[in-house]
Amino acid sequence: MTATPDVEFPPVVPPDETARRQAVARHQTLTKPAGSLGRLEELGVWLAACQGACPPRPFTRARVVVFAGDHGVAAQGVSAYPSAVTGQMVTNFLTGGAAVNVAASVAGATVRVVDMAVAADTPEQISAHKVRRGSGLIDRADALTQQEVEAAIAAGRAVADEEVDGGADLLIAGDMGIGNTTPAAVLVAALTSAEPVAVVGRGTGVDDNGWMRKVAVIRDALRRARKVANDPVALLRTAAGADLAATAGFLAQAAVRRTPVLLDGVVVGAAAVVAEELAPGARQWWVAGHRSPEPAHALVLEHLDLTPLLDLGMRLGEGSGALAALPLLVLAARVLGEMATFDEAGVSGPDTPPPPAPTGTGDGISTTG
Amino acid sequence: MTATPDVEFPPVVPPDETARRQAVARHQTLTKPAGSLGRLEELGVWLAACQGACPPRPFTRARVVVFAGDHGVAAQGVSAYPSAVTGQMVTNFLTGGAAVNVAASVAGATVRVVDMAVAADTPEQISAHKVRRGSGLIDRADALTQQEVEAAIAAGRAVADEEVDGGADLLIAGDMGIGNTTPAAVLVAALTSAEPVAVVGRGTGVDDNGWMRKVAVIRDALRRARKVANDPVALLRTAAGADLAATAGFLAQAAVRRTPVLLDGVVVGAAAVVAEELAPGARQWWVAGHRSPEPAHALVLEHLDLTPLLDLGMRLGEGSGALAALPLLVLAARVLGEMATFDEAGVSGPDTPPPPAPTGTGDGISTTG
Repeated sequence: MTATPDVEFPPVVPPDETARRQAVARHQTLTKPAGSLGRLEELGVWLAACQGACPPRPFTRARVVVFAGDHGVAAQGVSAYPSAVTGQMVTNFLTGGAAVNVAASVAGATVRVVDMAVAADTPEQISAHKVRRGSGLIDRADALTQQEVEAAIAAGRAVADEEVDGGADLLIAGDMGIGNTTPAAVLVAALTSAEPVAVVGRGTGVDDNGWMRKVAVIRDALRRARKVANDPVALLRTAAGADLAATAGFLAQAAVRRTPVLLDGVVVGAAAVVAEELAPGARQWWVAGHRSPEPAHALVLEHLDLTPLLDLGMRLGEGSGALAALPLLVLAARVLGEMATFDEAGVSGPDTPPPPAPTGTGDGISTTG
Repeated sequence: MTATPDVEFPPVVPPDETARRQAVARHQTLTKPAGSLGRLEELGVWLAACQGACPPRPFTRARVVVFAGDHGVAAQGVSAYPSAVTGQMVTNFLTGGAAVNVAASVAGATVRVVDMAVAADTPEQISAHKVRRGSGLIDRADALTQQEVEAAIAAGRAVADEEVDGGADLLIAGDMGIGNTTPAAVLVAALTSAEPVAVVGRGTGVDDNGWMRKVAVIRDALRRARKVANDPVALLRTAAGADLAATAGFLAQAAVRRTPVLLDGVVVGAAAVVAEELAPGARQWWVAGHRSPEPAHALVLEHLDLTPLLDLGMRLGEGSGALAALPLLVLAARVLGEMATFDEAGVSGPDTPPPPAPTGTGDGISTTG
């Protein structure tokens, strides 16, 4: 570890075991067959443990933070879109016209945008943490300087702290950056020992020639990244970008601050894999919102041992996949908080079924079991 | 067909092709890579086609109708719970303490309960359509008389009409009835030519002995049901129950009334398989909310060629699985209605990526693509 104080995280405390057990027990008392809400029951139990409270409180401030940044590799033709789109989409986020805005509105969340390395000028309100315009060409040079990577991780931490101090009780990280699935794939390959071809996807929809260029860029970048794969800060400096480094810092700090996180797709997932290296155990504070069709995302989920809530072929980023899953988390919490118990509702519990009636009248009904 | 006028459905009109095409085209103009919202895009297109309008209107009145009824086979020990629970849970629905109430509240829907054959007395407000107290012991006698099955189907139709006339723009059917996965399994096996063992599940959590009793009941009931499998009304009379018959009528009539439906799990799914026989083409108006672990539900989904939105191990019924998925449908509609287009937001579209730069400075950024 070459980590400086700015990028050293305190130990992650696991979610609360007492509240977890209380939630498991409470689920047995609610007016439904035990376990019949499947994964929703596990989610509610996890939320109770994260909050240290059973039943868990409904979310009052679910927040999406979209970390935006450009990537030098976009100039290598690895994306279907020009880099200019990053800044244009940031404006779109601020005026409420993007998918993340609609998905946040549906899920009852609010959106914050943080410009870490957009190649264009952005409004002052979102550029306070900006470390540069575009991150480096990772197939031949470092994405960031040491000073920049430390600043980016610290920015992600600071944003997490600001959000938690501001009352956020659920955090989602989103991404925006043309070309960003390329560094994401490199990070995932470096930390899961995967071959380049196993992590290369179509991103926003690159064509066959672009796909081949992307493979070559990832291969070259991975050659550089593997040398520092055992040092998460050096890995972020070498192969990530300021947006991804900030996201990793944000996800790690959320865990340090004992705040549950709903993960999005492959770009946030790649940052999460690094964040788990920065702050081991952080993943206990995360749930995977969805499964992206990007091949590297399957490796992320396997590596972090997370089972996604949704599998709808979403591959947009911005936090949209996590937001699509957020109502499930809301439901999981409210089930524990609002459903009546068998006692409260005067509903009989399960019994030992009687032996089959030896004869029947054809319409006999047992009302006692 | 022995169908009388009361159980004959007019032809189902398919969702609107013009609106469908408009929605497909509109998705190409919104500020996201084409297809990047995956299944959500297809859902939005389907809703536009159902409404005959692009973009589709947000739901103003999503309604869950829970059809409740007891089943004679509960006396055979096929369930982990006594039949008395059906009436108790109906009371729980009316006082807002059940999973369906919480899930409806989260999703912005409202709940109606219809007692078709509960073995207990229920309030007048929900018992207007009741045809009997508990349906027959289907392993040895018909579930209903001809008059009762016709009344039940007509009740389901009438409820769908009332809801659509009352402004419902999305319908969900839910179920409540101890023992009801047994007739559901019989209906599915009869219409998909499956063997009894392929459709028997644990229901609310029956033990091994109960499971064996359930297999025997299903085997005997299926022997009776197969003889009338080509006549959906006779099949409902023989092997269903008033709640299932009403649900089938409700689902078929929703399609006749061109109202989209989000399907729940195995019990509603079994009714849906019959409804597709009553009103061929009705399934074009349905989306599967979730996949239940009940084995018969996999056959339902395959038979109706529906891909579920969620797969969370939910097996509660009441409409809870469909309600858990409803926010995805809300999101799908609002994406089409609220996202900015590339033109509106001044965002560049995809371009042909440039060839890779022959040399690089290490931090070069293309802002024009």
